[in-house]
Formats: sequence, structure tokens, C-alpha cells
Amino acid sequence: MKPQVLKGFRDYLPEEMLPRSRLIAGIKRVFEQHGFAPLDTPALEYAELLLGKYGQEGDKLLFRFLDNGERDVALRYDLTVPLARLLGSNPEILPPFKRYHIAPVWRAEKPARGRFREFMQCDVDIVGVESMSADAEVIATGMEALHAILGAHDTLEASQQRGGKPGFTVRLSNRKLLNGLCLVLGVPDDRAVALFRTLDKLDKQGKEAVAALLTSEVGLDERQVAKTFEYLECPASPNDLGPLDRYFAGVEIAQQGLDEMRQVVQLLEEHRLSHYLAIDPSIARGLDYYTGSIYETTLNGLDGFGSVMSGGRYDKLLDMFTGKATAAVGISVGLDRLLAGLIELKLLGSRASPTDVLVTVFSEETRRFSTEVASGLRKAGVCAELFLGQDKLGKQFRYADRKQIPYAIVCGPDEVAKREVKVKTLASGDEKTIAADKVMSWAQETIR
Amino acid sequence: MKPQVLKGFRDYLPEEMLPRSRLIAGIKRVFEQHGFAPLDTPALEYAELLLGKYGQEGDKLLFRFLDNGERDVALRYDLTVPLARLLGSNPEILPPFKRYHIAPVWRAEKPARGRFREFMQCDVDIVGVESMSADAEVIATGMEALHAILGAHDTLEASQQRGGKPGFTVRLSNRKLLNGLCLVLGVPDDRAVALFRTLDKLDKQGKEAVAALLTSEVGLDERQVAKTFEYLECPASPNDLGPLDRYFAGVEIAQQGLDEMRQVVQLLEEHRLSHYLAIDPSIARGLDYYTGSIYETTLNGLDGFGSVMSGGRYDKLLDMFTGKATAAVGISVGLDRLLAGLIELKLLGSRASPTDVLVTVFSEETRRFSTEVASGLRKAGVCAELFLGQDKLGKQFRYADRKQIPYAIVCGPDEVAKREVKVKTLASGDEKTIAADKVMSWAQETIR
Repeated sequence: MKPQVLKGFRDYLPEEMLPRSRLIAGIKRVFEQHGFAPLDTPALEYAELLLGKYGQEGDKLLFRFLDNGERDVALRYDLTVPLARLLGSNPEILPPFKRYHIAPVWRAEKPARGRFREFMQCDVDIVGVESMSADAEVIATGMEALHAILGAHDTLEASQQRGGKPGFTVRLSNRKLLNGLCLVLGVPDDRAVALFRTLDKLDKQGKEAVAALLTSEVGLDERQVAKTFEYLECPASPNDLGPLDRYFAGVEIAQQGLDEMRQVVQLLEEHRLSHYLAIDPSIARGLDYYTGSIYETTLNGLDGFGSVMSGGRYDKLLDMFTGKATAAVGISVGLDRLLAGLIELKLLGSRASPTDVLVTVFSEETRRFSTEVASGLRKAGVCAELFLGQDKLGKQFRYADRKQIPYAIVCGPDEVAKREVKVKTLASGDEKTIAADKVMSWAQETIR
Repeated sequence: MKPQVLKGFRDYLPEEMLPRSRLIAGIKRVFEQHGFAPLDTPALEYAELLLGKYGQEGDKLLFRFLDNGERDVALRYDLTVPLARLLGSNPEILPPFKRYHIAPVWRAEKPARGRFREFMQCDVDIVGVESMSADAEVIATGMEALHAILGAHDTLEASQQRGGKPGFTVRLSNRKLLNGLCLVLGVPDDRAVALFRTLDKLDKQGKEAVAALLTSEVGLDERQVAKTFEYLECPASPNDLGPLDRYFAGVEIAQQGLDEMRQVVQLLEEHRLSHYLAIDPSIARGLDYYTGSIYETTLNGLDGFGSVMSGGRYDKLLDMFTGKATAAVGISVGLDRLLAGLIELKLLGSRASPTDVLVTVFSEETRRFSTEVASGLRKAGVCAELFLGQDKLGKQFRYADRKQIPYAIVCGPDEVAKREVKVKTLASGDEKTIAADKVMSWAQETIR
């Protein structure tokens, strides 16, 4: 029996899981500080509830099967449709409702470097608020989460390499501009989704490939392709939506989208976060359910890496589950891609163990004293590991070295008699002797 | 399309998810303070790796299916077999290895009150340590986790209701005693598993039902049944294993088990945790893979509720994956059952939202000021929610009431002009005015 990981999946060993778990804790804190309440839904849902929400391609990517009771079920593909289902199942939840959900999702995509079939999403959504204050709130919350994470890890060097740019940029657009584009080009409704999906490939496949697809897949002629690129390359910025304004002169739906974008920019300026914002008309977001604001986020200094935080407004999805029109908007941090990005940018330190101090055990007679020292250290908030087993001190130190544990404490019979401990700094080999009742204050000064 | 939750599964709404997420954070902290490193494995594994590890019954309870590439896969049933698989896939991980893993598992069991097909496990395991110090370490870590959780929630009243007993009791036994029991009874190896599984039902089905099953399922005669109950009811305690010692006089394997139990008791006494310990020969643990120590944990004051934390030593499981003999021992906190227990014991408070302060928005003109106040509060570590939308103050207060938010802040044009805010305590209706630059210190004094 070969102990292999399932194709398309991966393990997270402690070296990756320690920083990953810190990221999750940081994101949770920011989400709660903005008043989002946590919830959790099952990994499995009735398949019929998920089908048709992510486009034909999405349906094919579901992990779908019959359960032991012959029910047609599927693993969740995102956290948005389960939220809609939950609101349908729990009509007592009144809007406005702000929730966050941090959980894995599953998509049977072709595995590629850095792309796996299971990945963790961290979503905030606001249900029942029509005004753009909700769009701004979820974007601001996402920005604050990334700011907290990068702030904790960013280096001056990394910032200089970006030429003083912020660590990330949220690129804003609006589905109503794309609806306007269909009108400008004369693309009928039934080809709109094909158009949006093709535009979505610009980032990964480049201009030429997309131009070819616009002809072959969407059926555009040369003039329409040129007009499409005129839109995609509109030099708009948060302070000047003028170029888009002129492109869409007289196109009402697009003008409405531009007005929404202006409001979101203004609100993010009031949040003092507009320096993280850019306007990017090329954003399309493949998923079918978006109706207004859409946004993606790139880490500056990592070209072609894709979005680490995306989302948008989806005012029609919930109706299918709740039976009534319900405004909704959300943002999702792609935790595993963010983690991969931070590692690539060398912004994450890593260790094999959370342990700060290894408390060695000299002999069976001194073990009780060592146990007490370790327990005291933990009460001081320190990660203190008691060595297990009856190995010689040298082997215990080698264990600490291998696990990158910074300090070891030795309590031999002499130390126990004097109620002292010896503290060894593993990297330098330095040793010093401390009274046992001073160990907690030493640890608080040195480690916390 | 009826938006229903899949049969056997459940949603966690904010009221349950807020305390659940606090429990997880508390457990993680204790696990890391004991030097366990986090890791994560895929929800799906090749089915052949899981089959045959949990007994015939377990195999039937797997969520097993063919994935899109026709691979025979299954959702993980526990976190122990995935750990063994991971160690097989990553031979560079050298023992001793201490890991924790907090993640959901799936079992297609008959749904019942409080029993779901998806539930969260919180496991610590130590690989590569033969000495009983590892058994004591995982038990001590689990005890400290429960102590931290109950300590944070326990009330004097609850403690009095238990007649001064501790909040929980870890019941210790050893598989070698059960092997000894087979020798004493003359039960052959091929009926041992049936015997153990029957004993495992004592807690839920009671003495008479188990006596009947011992006859019908295991094939014991009257004398053997009586001898079994003599074992099950042996009045042993951590300080006196004498009754078991006499029962197993001359039965070498059982004597070895008793010796291991004595060492675990002694070590837990050195950890100053032996007051949480009891000896319970009736524990069998259904899973096939245990070889030494086994333990279950009951919340005192909740009879017949089942175990909230269990585990044991499984020195042979890893061999199947790593190809070499590797000692291993672990403990698992059943988070969702623990949560249900704490709710039943009324030890958990609950709210609908994490928000401490709702910052109201008086008008579009004062919104920037409100945004600043909310942002300042968050910097002080407070959960501060900015009201979204353009509703009247009365409606904003009703929102705060409904979400059980304790404080609301009002910044109307008068307050903005004087750079003040009005703080309203929702429960009492009390209001007071504070200078805007004093809001952070007010929040730190009042809320944190």
C-alpha cells in the first residue's frame, strides 16, 4: 500500500502550517473587529443546490457523488452559494446580516503548479444592504486584513523593491460596465457569458491569445475586437473615471456602473484606504452570479501571480434560495494563494515547531522538577516542551536544534538542589544560570 | 429548489459558532504551548488507505466514491490514519514528532440527537516515543486544554452541583488488560474484536443489554459473562490498582498493561493533574488499532453523555504506512460534542455578533467622522461595526439591540463640530458624552 497523497491535493507540514495558521488567526481578528459574525456550513450539500451556479465549466468541476443513502451530493465549490442556501434554510435571520466563513472548498480543476483541488477561502459577505457602503465595507475589511498580514511581515527591502508601492492593489470594476460593453459591441445576451469568460483570461493568456479567442469563441469581427481592447485599456484611475465616462457616453447601464464605482472610491477614501485602489476595466470574474461591483487583488512585486482576494456584488443569487430579492456583496481571501505569494516574496519566516523552550529531562529523579518548570513557562504564555524519553542531554540538544527551538533549559541534580536552572541559547551555545522562581520573568522578557 | 441542509449535517449559526471558534482558539493555544506543531492533510484520501483501519463497521461508514478521474476516494474518517499516511509520504520527518491537527471528519452514521455525519476533531499525537512519558504528555495536554476551557466558563454554581468534583474525569485503561481478559475467559483471537466492541456499548446500552450481547454475539457462557463483569466492575483507583492486580494474577500481558498504567498515573501526578484521573476497566475503544493505553473523558454532571476526549496508544498502525515499527500515541478532543456538553451545562454564554460597539451614521456629511471613530476603536482592539445604509438612528439602535451589541456611538453634526461622541449603553439606555480623542481609552477601560 503506497502512502500517497491524492492527485491534485497536498499536505501542509508544520513549516507551512505554522505561518498559515497565523494568517488565519490574523484574518479572523480583522473580520471580527469589523463586526462580521462567524458561521459554518457542511462540506457536503445536495448537488442540485450547487449545480448551475458556477457556469457549465463549474458544474463539471464539482466533486459530486451518491452518498450511502443514494442522495445526489457534492462538496462545496465556494462559500457563497452555501451562504445563500443557509439563508434560505434559516428565514429567521433578518438582514442586514454580516458573516464571515473560513473553510476549505473543492474544485476538480486540472492540477498545476500552485493550484490544488482543495483550498481555503476566507469570506466576508453583507446581505441586505443595497447601498455602496456595503461594497466599500467588504473591500475595506479585506484591505485591512491584508494590511495587517503584510504589516506584520513586510520588510523595508521588499517595499523598496516595489518602488514604494503599497504591498497590494485592489483592482475595481463593475459588471454593469461589461453589460454596457455588450451594448457598445452589439453582442447579444446569449454570448455575453462567453465574452466575459474570454476577457477573464487576459491576465493569464495575454492580449494576442484573447484577441484570437474573441474572434473564434465569441464571434467578434475585427472592429469589435479593436473596440473591446479600447475598453480594456481605458486609462482610468480612482481619481479620474473620465476615459470610461467618455467611452460609455449615453450608455445608461454603464453610466450606472460608473456612478457606483465613484461611490465606492469616495467611501474607501473616507476609510483612508484609497491608496490601495486601482481601476481595472479588464476584470470580468468568471462566475455567473455577479451583478455590480467586482474586484481582484494583486500582490505588488509578483507579476502574473493571479488574484489573492476577489469578490463582488451578487444581488440575484439569494433570490433563488430565499424566494425574495436580497442585495448581497462579498469578498474572499484565497488563503493558500496568499500564503504561496508571501513565501515567494520571502515575507514569511518559518520554523518546524512552535516551541520556544525545550525543558530537558536529566534523569527520572529530576523529571518532576523539569515538569514543574515547563508548566510554569506555559503559565507565562510561552510554548515550552518537556523532553520525552530517557535520552542523554546531547541527544536532547540535537532534537532542539533539528526542530529549530531557540532555547533549552537544563535542570540536573545540582540545579534541582539549588532550585536553579541552566538556560542554553542553542544558536550561540551561551549558557546562564537562573533561579527557578525567576524563569517566568526571564521568559517574559526574552520571548514574549 | 428547497434550500435544505443535507441529511445528517448541520449549520453552525453565529450564536453557536462564536463560542465554538473561541473553544478552537483556546485548544490551539494549549496544544502549541505543549510544543505540538500544526499540520493539515486533504479531506479526501485514496480509499484503499482508509479501508480496513476502522473495522468492518467503519468501512461501511466511509463517504466513498469515484472522483472525476475514476479514482476510488473517501472523505477522512479520523485524523490518525491521515497522520500515518503523511508520515509514510514524508519519510524525511524524523521521530520524535509531535503534531496537532484540528479539522472536520466525516462518518455516515445513523443521525441521532447530537450526532452528525460531519464533526470537528482536535488531535494531538506523539510519534516515535515508546516510553509512557508520551502517553502522559498527550493526556496532560488534553487535560490542560479542557481545564483552560472550563476554567474560562466554569461557575461556582456548576462546581457545587458536581459536589466539588472537577469539571471532567479522564478514565484510563489499557488494551493489554483486555488481551489479558481474553486469556482469562479463554476467548480466541478471532472473537476478541467482537468482545471489545460489545464492552464498548456498556456506557450507552447498560449492563443487561451487554450481558445479552456477550452471550449472543461473542458466544460466552454464563460463567464467562460473570467473569467479564467481575473484571468490568473491578474497584480500582489511580492510587490502588490492587483489585486488577489480583484479578490478573499470573497473566503476563495484563500485568504489563497494569505496569504501564501505574507509570502513566505517576507521571500525571508529577504534572499535578492526577485529580482528573480515574481507572475504568470497562473502556474498550471500538477502533481496531489500539495496542496500549486507552482513555475516554466524561464531563462531570452530565451522565450518559459519552466521551468528549479520547484516544490511546497505537504502536502498530504506522508500520502499515511507513514500513517500520513506530511507536505512537494520541488524544482527540471531540469539539462538537464538547460544545454541546458545555451548552447543556449552561457554561457557555452566546451572542449573535462579535461586535462590541455599533458606530451609527447620522448623515452623509458626518459619515467620514463615524468611519474614523470606528477605525480608531479597532486599533484599540475593539470589535467596532460601522452602520451601513442611510437609516434613521432609531432603526440603527434596533439593529444593535437585535444583534445584542452592548454599546452604540452617535456622532451627529453637533458632536462632529465639537469633536465629541455620545456613547449609549443599549441595555440601560444610559448616554454619556466623550471627547473623540478619549474614545479609545474609554473602550479599553470598558470593553477589554
